[in-house]
Amino acid sequence: DVPGNGEQKHDGFQESGERMELTERELIDQIAALIPEPGDRTLLGIGDDAAILQAGARSSVVTTDTFTEWVHFRMDHLSPDQVGFKSMSAAISDCAAMGATPRWVTISVAAPDNTSSQRILSMYHGIVEAARAYDCDIVGGDTVRSMSDLTITITVIGEPLGERIWTRSGARIGDDVLVTGELGGPMAALALLENDPRLSLDERYQRTMIRFLRPEARIDVARALANFPLTSAIDVSDGLSTELHHIARASGVGFHIERETIPLYDGALVVAEDLGYPAEAFALFGGEEFELLLTVEPGYDEDMIHTVEQETGLRLTRIGTVVDAEEGVTLFDSAGGSEVLEEKGYEHFG
Amino acid sequence: DVPGNGEQKHDGFQESGERMELTERELIDQIAALIPEPGDRTLLGIGDDAAILQAGARSSVVTTDTFTEWVHFRMDHLSPDQVGFKSMSAAISDCAAMGATPRWVTISVAAPDNTSSQRILSMYHGIVEAARAYDCDIVGGDTVRSMSDLTITITVIGEPLGERIWTRSGARIGDDVLVTGELGGPMAALALLENDPRLSLDERYQRTMIRFLRPEARIDVARALANFPLTSAIDVSDGLSTELHHIARASGVGFHIERETIPLYDGALVVAEDLGYPAEAFALFGGEEFELLLTVEPGYDEDMIHTVEQETGLRLTRIGTVVDAEEGVTLFDSAGGSEVLEEKGYEHFG
Repeated sequence: DVPGNGEQKHDGFQESGERMELTERELIDQIAALIPEPGDRTLLGIGDDAAILQAGARSSVVTTDTFTEWVHFRMDHLSPDQVGFKSMSAAISDCAAMGATPRWVTISVAAPDNTSSQRILSMYHGIVEAARAYDCDIVGGDTVRSMSDLTITITVIGEPLGERIWTRSGARIGDDVLVTGELGGPMAALALLENDPRLSLDERYQRTMIRFLRPEARIDVARALANFPLTSAIDVSDGLSTELHHIARASGVGFHIERETIPLYDGALVVAEDLGYPAEAFALFGGEEFELLLTVEPGYDEDMIHTVEQETGLRLTRIGTVVDAEEGVTLFDSAGGSEVLEEKGYEHFG
Repeated sequence: DVPGNGEQKHDGFQESGERMELTERELIDQIAALIPEPGDRTLLGIGDDAAILQAGARSSVVTTDTFTEWVHFRMDHLSPDQVGFKSMSAAISDCAAMGATPRWVTISVAAPDNTSSQRILSMYHGIVEAARAYDCDIVGGDTVRSMSDLTITITVIGEPLGERIWTRSGARIGDDVLVTGELGGPMAALALLENDPRLSLDERYQRTMIRFLRPEARIDVARALANFPLTSAIDVSDGLSTELHHIARASGVGFHIERETIPLYDGALVVAEDLGYPAEAFALFGGEEFELLLTVEPGYDEDMIHTVEQETGLRLTRIGTVVDAEEGVTLFDSAGGSEVLEEKGYEHFG
């Protein structure tokens, strides 16, 4: 959600010859440096899953995401309605990560000149299905045809579900680290597609494929957790390793993660075994899913966890502890081994 | 601001061979038919310059616009910072047309792979300059590189300046029709560029070129008019003829326009004479400018008009009367002639 948060490396092409071309990281940083500090009516500007706006006594959140063919998804992996639904889930997931529910969305579609009307309509069918599923109104947008890869920009305005809006920056040393649901399904599905697209049609993998093709934002979990003593939250759309590092940077902390406790999706285990891949990597470096990574004050009521699990049908799993920033982000195993967890992951879907 | 509001005709390419390809108009209508009716928290959905949202006791407006190279602007006409500034003005103008001021914006940029970082940064310079000029916070966005024409999507959230938010649908028979400022400058500039780009450098045309290169949204006028008894409002971004027809359709009325009273920008008169074009057409079928077209209850206080003119430095000109829908939109001249005003205009800029 940061301007300059482009996922694709660019080729260093130099137009003017007068200046050195910037790396993508440098470009992002320079754009961020240009953006003025927001005024009093903006409680939180660029840099989290969403911004926090103050209008009178009420606050709301707003987030914009752009999804581009080849960068974020492939039309040979997803049907047009799946592209629509998945883009909505990805955008709305940023609301869930702030402890907010989506209220209004705007949709802009730039479609290549040669896209058939039926494909565009089918994409809107997926968008509308998601708007119904997440109970939000589509209140504006544009559809433009151009010499472009298919590009969908979705802006979501949401309202907080509880008293507080969650950010990435509140984790404190000693907090517990929780994750919702099970991880690794979407990346296992992508591994199937990349290995041999025909595998994706195998009955054995259908549940796993659905986690990739039609992922759901965790608004239900955010609602159930609305008044839980969370100190920070983020969705794992870029994979557990990347998201842990995001919270670590924003909160100025480190993480001890107990690697055997990371909840792996059972279908991902099957794919991992069949393809000979390490299942844990699907969770750590995968993403493309919208489970929530949370930190919570220690000493919380375990019964509340069970209530949330019952309400949502999802597990909440403790996977580690917040530690001092100097300790970095580290995976520990029960045999006493440890490994620094690098920040890496897929940043596109589909 | 309507999904499906694509400005470019598409080529009727048929992918499946199974169904007839839709016209652009049919596609827009079918997309609109897919979008569910909004809930109670949305006071006005798709179809006006912006949607009106209700959050508690407060209302706000939101509008999304997508600007695409070749469809909406040409990089050989505008410098990157002008593209940034002009896109912001165009998006924010939709707030002015609702009687609102912009508070928060999100920006998404999809840039071709070979765009230099300096050009992207220069575009952001224009965007930031506009955010400062219009006093709003940039609170989110994305920058993605892809195989695309340059595409900028801007979402603006605004707050009402007065008690009421203006729409297109409130014009009533007998209302006066007013327009702010002077029309035709940007189209005169575009005519110069299309006639011979070198002309655009002529000192004689500099003021006119600036109206095209760096147009301003009329937030100042909207503020000055905030408590004026307006019955409808729209910006003339697609030209006077198109906008009159928009209000006519939304309000179920017609218009008598006194053609000699339409305020033409003096620089447009010069260009018209030099190129042998009819100056009036620049105003009627031009657009690319952000003056406001307003209807107002008759018997308003003329002194208020003068106050607004003094506060803003812009003329407010009465150009006609709202009439019965059956009378259509008609131009009258002082010699007693009349002519039906067709809905046509440029729908792109630059």
